[in-house]
Amino acid sequence: MTETAAPRRSRITPEREAELYAAVLDLLREVGYDALTMDAVAARTRSSKATLYRQWGGKPELVVKAMRSQQPGGIADIDTGSLRGDLHAIIMREDDCAMEQNAALMRALSMAIQANGDLRQAFKELLVEPEVVEFSRILRRAIDRGEVRSDNPALSYMVHMLVGAFATRTLIDDLPPTREFLASYIDAVVLPALGVSPR
Amino acid sequence: MTETAAPRRSRITPEREAELYAAVLDLLREVGYDALTMDAVAARTRSSKATLYRQWGGKPELVVKAMRSQQPGGIADIDTGSLRGDLHAIIMREDDCAMEQNAALMRALSMAIQANGDLRQAFKELLVEPEVVEFSRILRRAIDRGEVRSDNPALSYMVHMLVGAFATRTLIDDLPPTREFLASYIDAVVLPALGVSPR
Repeated sequence: MTETAAPRRSRITPEREAELYAAVLDLLREVGYDALTMDAVAARTRSSKATLYRQWGGKPELVVKAMRSQQPGGIADIDTGSLRGDLHAIIMREDDCAMEQNAALMRALSMAIQANGDLRQAFKELLVEPEVVEFSRILRRAIDRGEVRSDNPALSYMVHMLVGAFATRTLIDDLPPTREFLASYIDAVVLPALGVSPR
Repeated sequence: MTETAAPRRSRITPEREAELYAAVLDLLREVGYDALTMDAVAARTRSSKATLYRQWGGKPELVVKAMRSQQPGGIADIDTGSLRGDLHAIIMREDDCAMEQNAALMRALSMAIQANGDLRQAFKELLVEPEVVEFSRILRRAIDRGEVRSDNPALSYMVHMLVGAFATRTLIDDLPPTREFLASYIDAVVLPALGVSPR
């Protein structure tokens, strides 16, 4: 995981990186995490395994960074002036099709995350924690504006509420998570839990 | 799924049924849903495949009923006089160890549920819907007592909130879901979303 904070190595262009990540995600969908090998990634992308290891450190980091490359990003730029506006803007970054693809990737990875400590660690460091930091900034502003009390206990469960809705939509309703569903969940659950009126 | 409403066939005792379900869950943990075969269940439990099919209809129903046999049950008996009391009583039915085992089984099955329409159907009919019905009864009483408004939009998301917290605890915090965590989530998120003061 020492690669995390290092600047991108110049020997891999952003285009080449995107191509590698796409190949990793294809393999993940085709064979699952356990059967995905660095050999297969190297073969499919015509890279050397040495390059893959030098650039990413290992399979867990490579897979999680490939997943992260699919996240829409840009939470840091969102500042609409209200918590409701910010949360709705977050879910509008992604269209329903991309959202369903991300949900499918998450499901493909969820069992491996439980079974594999290295992958869990990479997932936590490279995906969950950056997300938690970005949400904290948005919640901090809502507290500073006086929208949310700083001691509201739901503040600790922001990511659980959102990821929980995202993850359970298919399981419970046999429907993909959509922007409309998440917007409705934010208004019905997340904002009231934080003591914010959704209207 | 025509077996669902039929009375239990007399040729299988409750002890024998429990033994069969235990074998199915062991196989599920060992090889996963896709590789689990009725042949393997028959061999391990010294039953005939014909009996398994006659009794359960097929692999999806057998697996989901085996999962259901691990659920603590007894929601129907809970009536403490307050919504908070009822929800806390629901999570206290199960000790932390059983809860973590159920969470692990759910994770083992979650990918197969996405990939397999028959299993998804059985899961929905035999596990999710009975749970939704039991929760509806508890929520109905809370509405009748005047604790919750009948048009509160969070009423539709009861199962999403609870299953979401259960499912994301390990993913986000690398900690098992425990009664203490779920009790705190109910007080911080579920009750405020429903407009009920947790104290």
